[in-house]
Amino acid sequence: MAFEGADPGTVRPGGRTARVRASVLRAAGDALAEHGFAHLDLADIARRAEVGKTTVYRRWGTVTGLVADLLLDMAEQSLPRTETGSLLGDLKANARLVQRTLADPRQGALFKAVIAAATCEAKTAQALHRFYDIRVEEWAPCVQQAIDRGEVPEGTDAHEVIRAVSAPLYYRLLTGSGHLDEAAADQAAEAAVAAARAGAYLIDRSEC
Amino acid sequence: MAFEGADPGTVRPGGRTARVRASVLRAAGDALAEHGFAHLDLADIARRAEVGKTTVYRRWGTVTGLVADLLLDMAEQSLPRTETGSLLGDLKANARLVQRTLADPRQGALFKAVIAAATCEAKTAQALHRFYDIRVEEWAPCVQQAIDRGEVPEGTDAHEVIRAVSAPLYYRLLTGSGHLDEAAADQAAEAAVAAARAGAYLIDRSEC
Repeated sequence: MAFEGADPGTVRPGGRTARVRASVLRAAGDALAEHGFAHLDLADIARRAEVGKTTVYRRWGTVTGLVADLLLDMAEQSLPRTETGSLLGDLKANARLVQRTLADPRQGALFKAVIAAATCEAKTAQALHRFYDIRVEEWAPCVQQAIDRGEVPEGTDAHEVIRAVSAPLYYRLLTGSGHLDEAAADQAAEAAVAAARAGAYLIDRSEC
Repeated sequence: MAFEGADPGTVRPGGRTARVRASVLRAAGDALAEHGFAHLDLADIARRAEVGKTTVYRRWGTVTGLVADLLLDMAEQSLPRTETGSLLGDLKANARLVQRTLADPRQGALFKAVIAAATCEAKTAQALHRFYDIRVEEWAPCVQQAIDRGEVPEGTDAHEVIRAVSAPLYYRLLTGSGHLDEAAADQAAEAAVAAARAGAYLIDRSEC
């Protein structure tokens, strides 16, 4: 169950426990993408994963527990950030990863399902929030490097810049406004760089 | 059922039919905000609205039909745009309307519920898309005025600029990343203006 990249069929090393987890999370992702959160059922997921029902109940307990673990796994498997030597290059790489993920039928449906679930399930909301925290933390250093290179002003909020790249792509996914194509990804990166250069993401803007 | 502004208790003129519609849409909005889309039930809404069940079934037919009408009503009742004389002023006014709506407990919950429903209901997705089209259409002329004043380059995509203002606020609402406060609204407007000035929203960027 990879976010942006690794083959979703890949079974990670670690013996039977890890294989069971990989199978169950893959089945949960498939079920979410196909039918949404409302129809998620642990017994059905156990069947899809060819794993004993009691194993699934014992390990994950509830559907929300399973989705939280799925999001943790997606965060753990996120691709590491690319370093291109310029902020625009780095943010375009990030934007294209997000765009490819959201435009992918299975992954896009999966994200829609999890975001929808998070609107009414506190535990899923926490897990989703944590997922984005990990993703943002992974990419934030490229903004610090841009500050060090003098590309954007000292005091730029690196986390806000990374979120600004994702926001218009998620907005397209969820409101159906505009295409989720590479042009959208590049535009998101270019807009974030221009805004950061102009000081729109300075941490304490009252001091400027 | 107003988006951003008008007293939600206001009954519009137009006699009994309009009053029934206003009561039912208000009840539907309350139910959505309280319990989400999954628990929406026409009989319950009729009870809340103190309107006969058959009237509700005859007029709206299904829960998705009712939510589509609610979104149409929200779009119709959206506040008209403010003209401040500068793009930044206009976009800040827009951003603060969006922010106040999404930060409001009832309206924020209502938007979350409708966006969640749109992820799995094609008719709701269409209605939501239409809602944003109307909102964007209402505000887009402020970008054209900014082009005419020479604030942003000729060929700037006005609709994209308006969407860019909303995107980070919806991203905060749905991912739980960061506060949904006035500072977030102002930052969204400032970022959109800076990006537009830099040409990030030019319609055909290959020509630049």
